[in-house]
Amino acid sequence: MAQLSDIRIVLVETSHPGNIGAAARAMKTMGLSQLALVAPKYQTHPEATALASNAPDVLEQAQVYPTLQAAVADCTLVMATSARPRHHNWQVVTPRECAAEFAAVPPGETAALVFGREKFGLTNDELGLCHRLVQIPANPEYNVLNLAAAVQLLAYELRLAMQAPAPQELLEPGVGNAAMEDFYAQLERVITRTDFLDPENPRKLMRRLRCLFNRARPDANEYNILRGLLASVEQKLPPE
Amino acid sequence: MAQLSDIRIVLVETSHPGNIGAAARAMKTMGLSQLALVAPKYQTHPEATALASNAPDVLEQAQVYPTLQAAVADCTLVMATSARPRHHNWQVVTPRECAAEFAAVPPGETAALVFGREKFGLTNDELGLCHRLVQIPANPEYNVLNLAAAVQLLAYELRLAMQAPAPQELLEPGVGNAAMEDFYAQLERVITRTDFLDPENPRKLMRRLRCLFNRARPDANEYNILRGLLASVEQKLPPE
Repeated sequence: MAQLSDIRIVLVETSHPGNIGAAARAMKTMGLSQLALVAPKYQTHPEATALASNAPDVLEQAQVYPTLQAAVADCTLVMATSARPRHHNWQVVTPRECAAEFAAVPPGETAALVFGREKFGLTNDELGLCHRLVQIPANPEYNVLNLAAAVQLLAYELRLAMQAPAPQELLEPGVGNAAMEDFYAQLERVITRTDFLDPENPRKLMRRLRCLFNRARPDANEYNILRGLLASVEQKLPPE
Repeated sequence: MAQLSDIRIVLVETSHPGNIGAAARAMKTMGLSQLALVAPKYQTHPEATALASNAPDVLEQAQVYPTLQAAVADCTLVMATSARPRHHNWQVVTPRECAAEFAAVPPGETAALVFGREKFGLTNDELGLCHRLVQIPANPEYNVLNLAAAVQLLAYELRLAMQAPAPQELLEPGVGNAAMEDFYAQLERVITRTDFLDPENPRKLMRRLRCLFNRARPDANEYNILRGLLASVEQKLPPE
């Protein structure tokens, strides 16, 4: 199982420095840190720094390479994003399939995810360095994702794929079934006294109410609120 | 099964016009078209138009509302994105779970996905209008996704979920937000009259009750039961 730190995001000849900064920020939000720039127009630029927001470390540690081939020389898995389905002889995968394959890379190896030029993507020679093409599902009438948006999506899928099962959240104490039965009994009592419940046929309505409250699954605090609420109603009802 | 056109993206008091434009672009790449702006600082702004790139239609057709409540009044499912895991009594879902639930909304109903202010998100009153919170999995040390990046991620998951084969459940019709507000008003009236609600400080308790019922998300039938139940209590209470 690879780690997020084993994944290299490669931006090829990015024209807009702001895009590099925004991509660095998107990477960092998902815990990616390895950024490689292939022949960027500007190596450092105030707009890149500004848009990297609080991710200057990713930007500062970026490696610059003259060619894509140099940038991926040590990588055992290379995938390139592609907007167009033109390449019928490349294997095209979804972002989710891409992430699953990245997660399966053995530890210690490096895998690269390549983003082409804003205007015209990658050359055929560059595509020849890639094992797969990743195609982001998009509106066929307007599939022009911003570069940083594409990085954000892929980084998100990579993070999900790399993540171990989520640790259980610490929740409020739950309510035991017996206590819930007390609540339902009290509820039934109240709505019988208010004539809402038909005493001839109480089952159906109570079943609906059970569905509703079981779906919500009140925690201990909420349970106490509900019991107190019903008690306040009981006290005000006319004596039986 | 809902359609992408039934989903409303709601941006609350967005400060940077560029973010609105970039969000519109992100929406359009995934086929979303309904944009609602709650009290935006600038209704039209050249920076918004510029960053919307080729998605001016989404921006031009955006509806402006004075409050979040107005923006979601007709929505039967409302979820808000949240960076912080602070709200232990709201149900928190992942983007993927969020998308699955949106996809299950019956045709013809409208569902809303709400994005809070860039600096401080949503108020507790605004959160009280929402059925669930969506939390994007992110780097715990730097989880500050740009607004448009968050819109992009969620829109992507929504697109994927809508394209998936429908999990065929026959669902009851949902309940619009405005109707739920009527229910909460009635509930507040009843428990004020039963002295359960402290008139000095009604907010906190009502917020807890909202959490509980929003989690359960009553369908139209259950809603009618709840309204009838409260009405039966009101009739029996001693006159004010």
